[in-house]
Amino acid sequence: MENDFHDWLRARLPAHPALQRSVGDDAAILSAPANEQLVVAADAIMDGVHFHLAEHGGAAAGRKALAVNLSDLAAMAARPLTATVSLALPRHDAANLAREVLEGMIPLAEEFDFSICGGDTNCWDHPLVISVTVIGTVPIDCGWRRDGGHVGDRLVVTGPLGGSLAGKHLTFRPRVDEALRWRDQFTVNAAIDISDGLAMDASRLAAASNCGAVIATERVPISNAAREAAKAGSDSTTPLQHALGDGEDFELLLAMPAREADRFTGENAAAVDVGQLQAEPGLWRRRGDETLEPLEGQGYQHG
Amino acid sequence: MENDFHDWLRARLPAHPALQRSVGDDAAILSAPANEQLVVAADAIMDGVHFHLAEHGGAAAGRKALAVNLSDLAAMAARPLTATVSLALPRHDAANLAREVLEGMIPLAEEFDFSICGGDTNCWDHPLVISVTVIGTVPIDCGWRRDGGHVGDRLVVTGPLGGSLAGKHLTFRPRVDEALRWRDQFTVNAAIDISDGLAMDASRLAAASNCGAVIATERVPISNAAREAAKAGSDSTTPLQHALGDGEDFELLLAMPAREADRFTGENAAAVDVGQLQAEPGLWRRRGDETLEPLEGQGYQHG
Repeated sequence: MENDFHDWLRARLPAHPALQRSVGDDAAILSAPANEQLVVAADAIMDGVHFHLAEHGGAAAGRKALAVNLSDLAAMAARPLTATVSLALPRHDAANLAREVLEGMIPLAEEFDFSICGGDTNCWDHPLVISVTVIGTVPIDCGWRRDGGHVGDRLVVTGPLGGSLAGKHLTFRPRVDEALRWRDQFTVNAAIDISDGLAMDASRLAAASNCGAVIATERVPISNAAREAAKAGSDSTTPLQHALGDGEDFELLLAMPAREADRFTGENAAAVDVGQLQAEPGLWRRRGDETLEPLEGQGYQHG
Repeated sequence: MENDFHDWLRARLPAHPALQRSVGDDAAILSAPANEQLVVAADAIMDGVHFHLAEHGGAAAGRKALAVNLSDLAAMAARPLTATVSLALPRHDAANLAREVLEGMIPLAEEFDFSICGGDTNCWDHPLVISVTVIGTVPIDCGWRRDGGHVGDRLVVTGPLGGSLAGKHLTFRPRVDEALRWRDQFTVNAAIDISDGLAMDASRLAAASNCGAVIATERVPISNAAREAAKAGSDSTTPLQHALGDGEDFELLLAMPAREADRFTGENAAAVDVGQLQAEPGLWRRRGDETLEPLEGQGYQHG
C-alpha cells in the first residue's frame, strides 16, 4: 500500500512554506528559522493502551498522537515546525485506517501552521501503533525546561485537572499558542506538561530543579469530569485524587517567581497557583494547620 | 519503567556538542548548523515483519531500525544531526529489551557522530515496534532528491545487490560518509537508497524524474548472497531476480551525467553503471540485441 498511500498523502497534505520537499522522497527537506534552536519530541500511542480503535476510531487516535507531541512542544514554549508519522497498521483495511489517522492529524497541523513532512506505513497482524516525532523551534536560550525552577517559585497549573478519560484525552487542545504568548509576557523558570498527573509531573519538575514541591491540595482545580469520575467510580477515589493522579490533562505546570505567578493568575482566569518549590526534596501537601505531610506519588506511570 | 529507563538512558547516551538538553525533559533542545536545511526521515520496523526478535535479538533490531533511517539520510546526502526512538515493548522483560535496543543503536550514533535526543517507551501485550525519526542537515540546495534525473543520465549502483535476508539487512553500513564525500566530488542529479530492490527503486527514481529507466541486466552486480539464495531456494528465482527484487540492500542508486558516471565508477571499485534514464516511461531491460523489453516490477512492496 506504500506507493498508493504516498500518492494520496502527497495530494492531501497542505503545502507549507518551510517545506521544500516532502512525502515521496527518501526524506523531507525543510528550512528552519535562522538563529533558533530545534526542539524535538517523540511519543507513540498504541491501540488498547492509549486509545481504543474500535471505540474511538482512527481519526481521534491520530489527533491524539499528534496532540500529545504538540503538548511536549508547548511545555518547552516552542513553535511547531514539522512532524513525522509512522504507522504500524493492522492488515485488515490498512489503507483506509491510515487515511483516517492522517485525517485526524491534518486539522491540528493547519491550526498550528506546521507541516507533516514524512510518513512510514507498514502492515502487520497486531494492533495499531501511531508514532509521531515533532520538531519545533525556539529563539536561542528561550525554551522552557524542567530544571530551571528555584526554591520559592510558585507552581501554577493552567486549567482544571482530572477525569480526562471521559473524553478530554482525545479532544484536548495542546497549549501551543498560549505557551508562545506566555513565553514573551512572563518569567517562567521551569515548565512541564501534565501528562501523568499533577502529583507525578510536579515531582518530576521539582526533582529536575533540585527542589521539592509543596501542593496546597485545597487549591488544586478539579475538573467536572474528575467529580463525575469520583461519583461514578466503584472505588473510593476522591475528586482530588483524580485531579492529582489521572493524568492526560495536558495542561501546563509552570514554576514562576511569586509576583509573576500573581500577575499570571490575575490575567489568566483558568490558571491557579497550587503550591511552590521548596528546598526539602520530595512531594508534600500543606495541611490546614500549615504542617506538611508527604503526598504519595499518585501519577500514572506509563508502562 | 519510564523514569528508570530515562535515568539509564541519560547516563548511557554519549554527550554531543549540538545537544543542549536531552532525555529527561519534555523535548530535546538542539543547535543546527547555520545556513543549512533540515532533512527529516521516519521509518519504523516491527518484530515478525522486518526482524525476528527471538532469532536476532534486540540489539540487532535496534541497529537496523536506526540504520535504515540513516540510509534515507544518505540518499539525500545529508549529515545526521540527531534521532528520536519510540519503542512499543512486549510487557515481558520490557526494561531489558529497551536497553538492548538502545545498545544496538549507540555504536552507530557514535560512528556517525550524532545524538539520540529523545525516547519514548510504552509496554503492551504485542510484539516490539521500533520507530525512529532522524534529522540531518545539508547545505542549502545541496541535498540529493529523487526527482532531479535527466534523460540520458546513467544509473549507478554503489555495491552488489540481492540476498540481504541472509544477514546484510541487519549488518549493512549505511552509505552516510560516502554520500557526503560524493556530494562534494561528483554531480549527482538524483538519488535513492535501494530498500525495496533495484527494480522498484529505479522505477521510483525514474518516475519522480519524469523519465523511464533502462537496466542493462547483464551488468547488475549480483552479491554472493544472492547466488547462494538462488542455489538454496526451492523456487526458480535466479540470482539476477534476487538482485533486482530482494530489497534491503541499502546501497545507493545515483543518476549522473555519463562522464560523471564514468569518473565515479573509475574511482569507486564497487560502483557499477547499470543503465540509464530515458524519455519513454516505465522500467525496461536492454536485451543482447539492443532491443528493449519491459522489466516487470520485482521490488518488495512493503505492506
